[in-house]
Amino acid sequence: MQYTIRDATAEDMPSVLELIKELASFEKEANAVELTIDDLVRDGFGADKLFHCFVAENNSTIVGMALIYNRYSTWKGPIIHLEDLVVSETMRGTGLGTVLLNEVVKHCAKQGVKRISWEVLDWNEPAIAFYERKGAKVLRDWDVVHLDEKGIQNYLKNI
Amino acid sequence: MQYTIRDATAEDMPSVLELIKELASFEKEANAVELTIDDLVRDGFGADKLFHCFVAENNSTIVGMALIYNRYSTWKGPIIHLEDLVVSETMRGTGLGTVLLNEVVKHCAKQGVKRISWEVLDWNEPAIAFYERKGAKVLRDWDVVHLDEKGIQNYLKNI
Repeated sequence: MQYTIRDATAEDMPSVLELIKELASFEKEANAVELTIDDLVRDGFGADKLFHCFVAENNSTIVGMALIYNRYSTWKGPIIHLEDLVVSETMRGTGLGTVLLNEVVKHCAKQGVKRISWEVLDWNEPAIAFYERKGAKVLRDWDVVHLDEKGIQNYLKNI
Repeated sequence: MQYTIRDATAEDMPSVLELIKELASFEKEANAVELTIDDLVRDGFGADKLFHCFVAENNSTIVGMALIYNRYSTWKGPIIHLEDLVVSETMRGTGLGTVLLNEVVKHCAKQGVKRISWEVLDWNEPAIAFYERKGAKVLRDWDVVHLDEKGIQNYLKNI
């Protein structure tokens, strides 16, 4: 299987949004994706770039993507977060996940960061096994916490 | 108990680093803090601001802090991450955690973000109870994953 991995362009965002939705659906959150193509174009390719995206092409079709951005650790300093690593369903098991992760790690090493972080669902055992084979540590004692839009509004009412 | 909550200045960074170390120690990771005062000054107050920090003052002493930065959700768009919320040990139980979190939530609401995220240790039940009382959701099925500095180096050797 041949892939080309390259930086995404604004023109790739419709395909990238499809992959975002595919992953959300796999994560049983199909309706959680509020983002639009216009949002992705503005946020990734406008004056203030909020993320960097790699895409994988096979025969001129986008079949995978990885989306990263900067974070800040008060222990390590600047770090990079891998928000999404998506391999289109038709391409699973072909090694594309590894090819995309290679690109991300090489990019992060060039930036000199001391950590790459991401999040994984604890029932997604194939993903966990894949990450652990790559040397990542799944911190099972750290949970993610969210105060969502409605939570923020309710919070403000009760201050 | 009277507190003043204000934006941190570069001059506050020695106190902020002490609070970072106090939290790391509580989290049983006292040796994980590699950051220096100079790093914090450069990253928070240089040309490229990587975080925003609030401090709480009591009688001209810094007794708490909250450190946030921007992230990007492929479901919701721009979000804000609360990296650390620290109340100095001598001030625990005085309501300062709430006062600091209020400030963070008000700031995030002004920015119009659709989510505030953070991370919590699953054995830190007082923190979890506090966050849940405030309307946050602890996503116990999402784990944090890290590829650390050594992991990145090893990864590159095996590509």
